[in-house]
Amino acid sequence: MSRPRDQRYHEILESAARLIFQSGYEATSMQEIAEACGLTKAGLYHHIKTKEALLLAIMHYGMDMFDDMVIAKVADIVDPVARLRECMARNVALVTLDSSKEVTIILHEHQTLTGASREEINSRKKRYVRFLEAAFREAIERGQIRAVDPTLAAFSFLGVVLWTYKWYRADGKLGPRQLSDGMIDLFFEGLMPRS
Amino acid sequence: MSRPRDQRYHEILESAARLIFQSGYEATSMQEIAEACGLTKAGLYHHIKTKEALLLAIMHYGMDMFDDMVIAKVADIVDPVARLRECMARNVALVTLDSSKEVTIILHEHQTLTGASREEINSRKKRYVRFLEAAFREAIERGQIRAVDPTLAAFSFLGVVLWTYKWYRADGKLGPRQLSDGMIDLFFEGLMPRS
Repeated sequence: MSRPRDQRYHEILESAARLIFQSGYEATSMQEIAEACGLTKAGLYHHIKTKEALLLAIMHYGMDMFDDMVIAKVADIVDPVARLRECMARNVALVTLDSSKEVTIILHEHQTLTGASREEINSRKKRYVRFLEAAFREAIERGQIRAVDPTLAAFSFLGVVLWTYKWYRADGKLGPRQLSDGMIDLFFEGLMPRS
Repeated sequence: MSRPRDQRYHEILESAARLIFQSGYEATSMQEIAEACGLTKAGLYHHIKTKEALLLAIMHYGMDMFDDMVIAKVADIVDPVARLRECMARNVALVTLDSSKEVTIILHEHQTLTGASREEINSRKKRYVRFLEAAFREAIERGQIRAVDPTLAAFSFLGVVLWTYKWYRADGKLGPRQLSDGMIDLFFEGLMPRS
Protein backbone atom coordinates (compact mmCIF):
# COMPACT_ATOMS: atom_id res chain seq x y z
CA MET A 1 0.00 0.00 0.00
CA SER A 2 1.76 3.15 -1.14
CA ARG A 3 0.76 6.55 0.17
CA PRO A 4 2.07 8.97 -2.47
CA ARG A 5 1.14 12.11 -0.53
CA ASP A 6 3.03 10.98 2.57
CA GLN A 7 5.94 9.93 0.42
CA ARG A 8 6.09 13.36 -1.22
CA TYR A 9 5.97 15.00 2.21
CA HIS A 10 8.80 12.76 3.39
CA GLU A 11 10.89 13.66 0.33
CA ILE A 12 10.42 17.34 1.11
CA LEU A 13 11.60 16.84 4.70
CA GLU A 14 14.57 14.88 3.41
CA SER A 15 15.65 17.57 0.93
CA ALA A 16 15.09 20.38 3.43
CA ALA A 17 17.06 18.55 6.11
CA ARG A 18 19.97 18.10 3.71
CA LEU A 19 20.07 21.82 2.87
CA ILE A 20 19.66 22.95 6.50
CA PHE A 21 22.30 20.45 7.62
CA GLN A 22 24.73 21.93 5.07
CA SER A 23 24.05 25.65 5.39
CA GLY A 24 22.05 26.20 8.58
CA TYR A 25 18.40 27.15 8.95
CA GLU A 26 18.68 30.92 8.46
CA ALA A 27 20.85 30.64 5.36
CA THR A 28 18.45 28.21 3.66
CA SER A 29 15.56 29.77 1.74
CA MET A 30 12.19 28.25 0.91
CA GLN A 31 13.08 28.96 -2.72
CA GLU A 32 16.14 26.68 -2.48
CA ILE A 33 14.12 23.98 -0.72
CA ALA A 34 11.45 24.16 -3.45
CA GLU A 35 14.10 23.87 -6.18
CA ALA A 36 15.73 20.87 -4.47
CA CYS A 37 12.30 19.17 -4.46
CA GLY A 38 11.53 20.06 -8.08
CA LEU A 39 8.64 22.24 -6.94
CA THR A 40 7.67 25.87 -7.34
CA LYS A 41 7.60 27.91 -4.15
CA ALA A 42 3.79 27.88 -4.30
CA GLY A 43 3.90 24.11 -4.76
CA LEU A 44 6.08 23.76 -1.68
CA TYR A 45 3.70 25.90 0.40
CA HIS A 46 0.92 23.54 -0.64
CA HIS A 47 2.69 20.81 1.38
CA ILE A 48 4.02 22.83 4.29
CA LYS A 49 2.68 26.07 5.76
CA THR A 50 5.83 27.81 7.00
CA LYS A 51 9.60 27.39 7.11
CA GLU A 52 9.40 27.00 10.87
CA ALA A 53 6.80 24.22 10.52
CA LEU A 54 9.29 22.47 8.24
CA LEU A 55 12.05 22.74 10.87
CA LEU A 56 9.68 21.46 13.54
CA ALA A 57 8.75 18.45 11.39
CA ILE A 58 12.45 17.70 10.73
CA MET A 59 13.20 17.85 14.45
CA HIS A 60 10.28 15.56 15.32
CA TYR A 61 11.54 13.14 12.70
CA GLY A 62 15.02 13.30 14.27
CA MET A 63 13.59 12.74 17.76
CA ASP A 64 11.59 9.76 16.46
CA MET A 65 14.79 8.31 15.02
CA PHE A 66 16.59 8.93 18.30
CA ASP A 67 13.78 7.26 20.27
CA ASP A 68 13.85 4.24 17.94
CA MET A 69 17.61 3.81 17.75
CA VAL A 70 18.58 4.73 21.30
CA ILE A 71 15.83 4.84 23.93
CA ALA A 72 13.68 1.96 22.67
CA LYS A 73 16.77 -0.27 22.48
CA VAL A 74 17.90 0.35 26.05
CA ALA A 75 14.80 1.21 28.10
CA ASP A 76 14.17 -2.42 29.07
CA ILE A 77 17.68 -3.12 30.37
CA VAL A 78 17.10 -3.82 34.05
CA ASP A 79 20.55 -2.90 35.39
CA PRO A 80 20.68 0.94 35.36
CA VAL A 81 24.46 1.16 34.75
CA ALA A 82 24.26 -1.31 31.88
CA ARG A 83 21.31 0.73 30.55
CA LEU A 84 23.35 3.95 30.68
CA ARG A 85 26.45 2.40 29.11
CA GLU A 86 24.46 0.96 26.22
CA CYS A 87 22.64 4.28 25.89
CA MET A 88 25.96 6.13 25.58
CA ALA A 89 27.25 3.65 22.98
CA ARG A 90 24.09 3.97 20.87
CA ASN A 91 23.91 7.72 21.15
CA VAL A 92 27.58 8.14 20.13
CA ALA A 93 26.95 5.80 17.20
CA LEU A 94 23.94 7.85 16.11
CA VAL A 95 25.96 11.07 16.12
CA THR A 96 29.18 9.69 14.60
CA LEU A 97 28.56 6.57 12.56
CA ASP A 98 25.24 7.58 11.08
CA SER A 99 25.88 11.33 11.48
CA SER A 100 22.16 11.77 11.07
CA LYS A 101 21.42 15.18 9.58
CA GLU A 102 18.11 15.44 11.45
CA VAL A 103 19.82 14.76 14.80
CA THR A 104 22.57 17.27 13.99
CA ILE A 105 19.91 19.87 13.18
CA ILE A 106 18.26 19.23 16.58
CA LEU A 107 21.62 19.75 18.28
CA HIS A 108 22.69 22.79 16.30
CA GLU A 109 19.46 24.76 15.92
CA HIS A 110 18.67 24.61 19.62
CA GLN A 111 17.40 28.19 19.77
CA THR A 112 15.86 28.55 16.34
CA LEU A 113 12.28 27.44 16.97
CA THR A 114 9.99 29.82 18.84
CA GLY A 115 6.86 29.59 20.98
CA ALA A 116 4.85 26.38 21.03
CA SER A 117 7.09 24.59 18.49
CA ARG A 118 10.10 25.20 20.70
CA GLU A 119 8.22 23.86 23.72
CA GLU A 120 7.28 20.70 21.81
CA ILE A 121 10.87 19.83 20.97
CA ASN A 122 12.24 20.96 24.32
CA SER A 123 9.82 18.68 26.12
CA ARG A 124 11.06 15.73 24.04
CA LYS A 125 14.65 16.66 24.88
CA LYS A 126 13.76 16.98 28.56
CA ARG A 127 12.27 13.51 28.49
CA TYR A 128 15.75 12.21 27.59
CA VAL A 129 17.37 14.18 30.43
CA ARG A 130 14.78 12.76 32.86
CA PHE A 131 15.42 9.24 31.54
CA LEU A 132 19.14 9.65 32.25
CA GLU A 133 18.62 11.24 35.67
CA ALA A 134 16.28 8.42 36.68
CA ALA A 135 18.86 5.80 35.67
CA PHE A 136 21.64 7.59 37.59
CA ARG A 137 19.36 7.88 40.63
CA GLU A 138 18.50 4.20 40.44
CA ALA A 139 22.18 3.25 40.15
CA ILE A 140 22.96 5.37 43.23
CA GLU A 141 20.14 3.75 45.21
CA ARG A 142 21.42 0.32 44.25
CA GLY A 143 24.91 1.31 45.43
CA GLN A 144 26.36 0.74 41.95
CA ILE A 145 27.78 4.24 41.60
CA ARG A 146 28.79 7.07 43.91
CA ALA A 147 26.20 9.54 45.18
CA VAL A 148 26.76 12.19 42.51
CA ASP A 149 24.15 14.76 41.49
CA PRO A 150 21.96 12.97 38.89
CA THR A 151 21.35 16.19 36.91
CA LEU A 152 25.04 16.98 36.75
CA ALA A 153 25.79 13.40 35.75
CA ALA A 154 23.10 13.53 33.04
CA PHE A 155 24.44 16.74 31.50
CA SER A 156 28.08 15.58 31.71
CA PHE A 157 26.99 12.38 29.93
CA LEU A 158 25.25 14.47 27.28
CA GLY A 159 28.23 16.81 26.94
CA VAL A 160 30.66 13.96 26.30
CA VAL A 161 28.30 12.33 23.80
CA LEU A 162 26.73 15.25 21.97
CA TRP A 163 29.74 17.53 21.63
CA THR A 164 31.07 14.99 19.13
CA TYR A 165 28.80 16.51 16.47
CA LYS A 166 31.08 19.57 16.50
CA TRP A 167 34.44 17.88 16.10
CA TYR A 168 34.14 14.24 15.02
CA ARG A 169 35.33 13.42 11.50
CA ALA A 170 34.88 9.92 10.07
CA ASP A 171 38.35 10.14 8.49
CA GLY A 172 40.06 11.14 11.76
CA LYS A 173 42.29 8.93 13.88
CA LEU A 174 39.52 7.74 16.24
CA GLY A 175 37.02 5.24 14.85
CA PRO A 176 33.39 5.44 16.08
CA ARG A 177 33.66 2.25 18.14
CA GLN A 178 36.99 3.28 19.65
CA LEU A 179 35.41 6.60 20.53
CA SER A 180 32.36 5.20 22.29
CA ASP A 181 34.36 2.48 24.09
CA GLY A 182 36.83 5.10 25.33
CA MET A 183 34.13 7.54 26.42
CA ILE A 184 32.22 4.83 28.28
CA ASP A 185 35.41 3.72 30.03
CA LEU A 186 36.39 7.25 31.03
CA PHE A 187 32.94 8.40 32.08
CA PHE A 188 31.78 5.36 34.05
CA GLU A 189 35.09 4.90 35.88
CA GLY A 190 34.43 8.34 37.37
CA LEU A 191 31.18 7.04 38.81
CA MET A 192 32.52 3.92 40.46
CA PRO A 193 32.24 3.75 44.25
CA ARG A 194 35.47 4.73 45.98
CA SER A 195 37.28 1.69 47.27
CA MET B 1 45.67 58.78 26.04
CA SER B 2 42.37 58.00 24.32
CA ARG B 3 42.25 56.40 20.90
CA PRO B 4 38.80 57.31 19.59
CA ARG B 5 39.07 55.27 16.38
CA ASP B 6 39.95 52.05 18.25
CA GLN B 7 37.23 52.74 20.76
CA ARG B 8 34.66 53.15 17.99
CA TYR B 9 35.82 49.88 16.42
CA HIS B 10 35.49 48.14 19.78
CA GLU B 11 31.95 49.52 20.24
CA ILE B 12 31.00 48.13 16.83
CA LEU B 13 32.31 44.68 17.75
CA GLU B 14 30.44 44.87 21.05
CA SER B 15 27.10 45.77 19.42
CA ALA B 16 27.52 43.23 16.65
CA ALA B 17 28.39 40.49 19.15
CA ARG B 18 25.26 41.28 21.17
CA LEU B 19 23.02 40.99 18.09
CA ILE B 20 24.70 37.83 16.78
CA PHE B 21 24.58 36.29 20.27
CA GLN B 22 20.82 36.93 20.40
CA SER B 23 19.74 36.03 16.87
CA GLY B 24 22.60 34.12 15.23
CA TYR B 25 24.92 35.27 12.46
CA GLU B 26 22.72 34.59 9.45
CA ALA B 27 19.66 36.29 10.96
CA THR B 28 21.60 39.46 11.80
CA SER B 29 21.90 42.03 8.99
CA MET B 30 24.58 44.69 8.53
CA GLN B 31 21.68 47.20 8.53
CA GLU B 32 20.71 46.14 12.08
CA ILE B 33 24.31 46.28 13.25
CA ALA B 34 24.70 49.78 11.77
CA GLU B 35 21.51 50.94 13.52
CA ALA B 36 22.64 49.50 16.87
CA CYS B 37 25.85 51.53 16.50
CA GLY B 38 24.07 54.72 15.46
CA LEU B 39 25.72 54.53 12.03
CA THR B 40 24.50 54.42 8.46
CA LYS B 41 25.29 51.23 6.58
CA ALA B 42 27.94 53.16 4.58
CA GLY B 43 29.36 54.45 7.86
CA LEU B 44 29.62 50.90 9.20
CA TYR B 45 31.41 49.69 6.05
CA HIS B 46 33.93 52.47 6.63
CA HIS B 47 35.01 50.63 9.80
CA ILE B 48 34.68 47.04 8.68
CA LYS B 49 34.89 45.57 5.18
CA THR B 50 32.50 42.62 5.32
CA LYS B 51 30.09 40.88 7.68
CA GLU B 52 32.40 37.88 7.76
CA ALA B 53 35.36 40.10 8.77
CA LEU B 54 33.20 41.30 11.66
CA LEU B 55 32.50 37.74 12.78
CA LEU B 56 36.20 36.90 12.50
CA ALA B 57 37.12 39.92 14.66
CA ILE B 58 34.51 38.94 17.27
CA MET B 59 35.88 35.41 17.39
CA HIS B 60 39.47 36.61 17.75
CA TYR B 61 38.32 38.86 20.58
CA GLY B 62 36.61 35.87 22.24
CA MET B 63 39.72 33.72 21.81
CA ASP B 64 41.85 36.50 23.34
CA MET B 65 39.50 36.59 26.32
CA PHE B 66 39.67 32.82 26.61
CA ASP B 67 43.48 32.88 26.47
CA ASP B 68 43.62 35.59 29.17
CA MET B 69 41.05 34.10 31.53
CA VAL B 70 41.80 30.40 31.13
CA ILE B 71 45.09 29.43 29.46
CA ALA B 72 47.29 32.24 30.82
CA LYS B 73 46.04 31.51 34.34
CA VAL B 74 46.85 27.80 34.27
CA ALA B 75 49.73 27.29 31.82
CA ASP B 76 52.39 27.67 34.53
CA ILE B 77 50.92 25.11 36.93
CA VAL B 78 53.59 22.43 37.06
CA ASP B 79 51.43 19.46 38.06
CA PRO B 80 49.52 18.45 34.89
CA VAL B 81 46.43 17.15 36.73
CA ALA B 82 46.20 20.31 38.84
CA ARG B 83 46.62 22.30 35.59
CA LEU B 84 43.76 20.40 33.93
CA ARG B 85 41.45 20.69 36.95
CA GLU B 86 42.00 24.43 37.23
CA CYS B 87 41.57 24.73 33.47
CA MET B 88 38.19 22.96 33.67
CA ALA B 89 37.05 25.20 36.55
CA ARG B 90 38.03 28.38 34.70
CA ASN B 91 36.55 27.27 31.40
CA VAL B 92 33.22 26.31 33.03
CA ALA B 93 33.20 29.69 34.79
CA LEU B 94 33.80 31.50 31.51
CA VAL B 95 30.87 29.73 29.84
CA THR B 96 28.43 29.86 32.78
CA LEU B 97 29.24 32.69 35.19
CA ASP B 98 30.33 35.23 32.60
CA SER B 99 28.35 33.65 29.74
CA SER B 100 30.56 35.63 27.41
CA LYS B 101 28.71 36.36 24.18
CA GLU B 102 31.93 36.24 22.15
CA VAL B 103 32.81 32.80 23.50
CA THR B 104 29.25 31.57 22.87
CA ILE B 105 29.51 32.82 19.29
CA ILE B 106 32.77 30.88 18.83
CA LEU B 107 31.03 27.74 20.09
CA HIS B 108 27.81 28.15 18.18
CA GLU B 109 28.98 29.49 14.80
CA HIS B 110 31.56 26.75 14.38
CA GLN B 111 30.87 26.30 10.66
CA THR B 112 29.98 29.85 9.66
CA LEU B 113 33.37 31.26 8.68
CA THR B 114 34.89 30.15 5.39
CA GLY B 115 38.34 29.86 3.85
CA ALA B 116 41.29 31.57 5.51
CA SER B 117 39.20 33.13 8.31
CA ARG B 118 37.96 29.70 9.30
CA GLU B 119 41.51 28.35 9.31
CA GLU B 120 42.64 31.20 11.59
CA ILE B 121 40.05 30.46 14.25
CA ASN B 122 40.32 26.70 13.87
CA SER B 123 44.06 26.87 14.47
CA ARG B 124 43.46 28.82 17.71
CA LYS B 125 40.90 26.18 18.79
CA LYS B 126 43.34 23.40 17.90
CA ARG B 127 45.98 25.04 20.06
CA TYR B 128 43.65 24.50 23.03
CA VAL B 129 43.08 20.84 22.11
CA ARG B 130 46.88 20.34 21.83
CA PHE B 131 47.36 22.04 25.22
CA LEU B 132 44.90 19.61 26.81
CA GLU B 133 46.33 16.55 25.05
CA ALA B 134 49.86 17.50 26.18
CA ALA B 135 48.71 17.81 29.80
CA PHE B 136 46.93 14.43 29.68
CA ARG B 137 50.01 12.85 28.10
CA GLU B 138 52.25 14.35 30.78
CA ALA B 139 49.93 13.11 33.53
CA ILE B 140 50.01 9.60 32.04
CA GLU B 141 53.82 9.65 31.83
CA ARG B 142 54.02 10.72 35.46
CA GLY B 143 51.69 7.86 36.42
CA GLN B 144 49.08 10.25 37.81
CA ILE B 145 46.27 9.03 35.59
CA ARG B 146 45.44 5.87 33.66
CA ALA B 147 46.80 5.38 30.14
CA VAL B 148 43.75 6.72 28.29
CA ASP B 149 43.88 8.14 24.77
CA PRO B 150 44.88 11.82 25.24
CA THR B 151 42.77 12.97 22.27
CA LEU B 152 39.70 11.18 23.54
CA ALA B 153 40.29 12.59 27.03
CA ALA B 154 40.70 16.10 25.60
CA PHE B 155 37.45 15.98 23.63
CA SER B 156 35.54 14.39 26.54
CA PHE B 157 36.84 17.22 28.75
CA LEU B 158 35.70 19.75 26.16
CA GLY B 159 32.32 18.06 25.77
CA VAL B 160 31.59 18.19 29.50
CA VAL B 161 32.69 21.81 29.72
CA LEU B 162 31.48 23.37 26.49
CA TRP B 163 28.11 21.65 26.17
CA THR B 164 27.02 23.81 29.13
CA TYR B 165 26.49 26.72 26.74
CA LYS B 166 23.49 24.86 25.35
CA TRP B 167 21.68 24.07 28.57
CA TYR B 168 23.03 26.04 31.54
CA ARG B 169 20.71 28.67 33.00
CA ALA B 170 21.90 30.98 35.78
CA ASP B 171 18.51 30.64 37.50
CA GLY B 172 18.53 26.82 37.41
CA LYS B 173 19.12 24.55 40.37
CA LEU B 174 22.88 24.13 39.83
CA GLY B 175 25.09 27.12 40.69
CA PRO B 176 28.22 27.72 38.56
CA ARG B 177 30.59 26.65 41.32
CA GLN B 178 28.57 23.55 42.15
CA LEU B 179 28.60 22.72 38.47
CA SER B 180 32.35 23.00 37.97
CA ASP B 181 33.16 21.22 41.26
CA GLY B 182 30.84 18.37 40.31
CA MET B 183 32.20 18.09 36.76
CA ILE B 184 35.80 18.08 37.97
CA ASP B 185 34.99 15.39 40.53
CA LEU B 186 33.17 13.20 38.02
CA PHE B 187 35.63 13.63 35.18
CA PHE B 188 38.90 13.26 37.08
CA GLU B 189 37.76 10.29 39.13
CA GLY B 190 37.39 8.48 35.81
CA LEU B 191 41.06 9.08 35.13
CA MET B 192 42.43 7.82 38.43
CA PRO B 193 44.73 4.79 38.26
CA ARG B 194 42.89 1.57 39.06
CA SER B 195 43.66 0.38 42.56
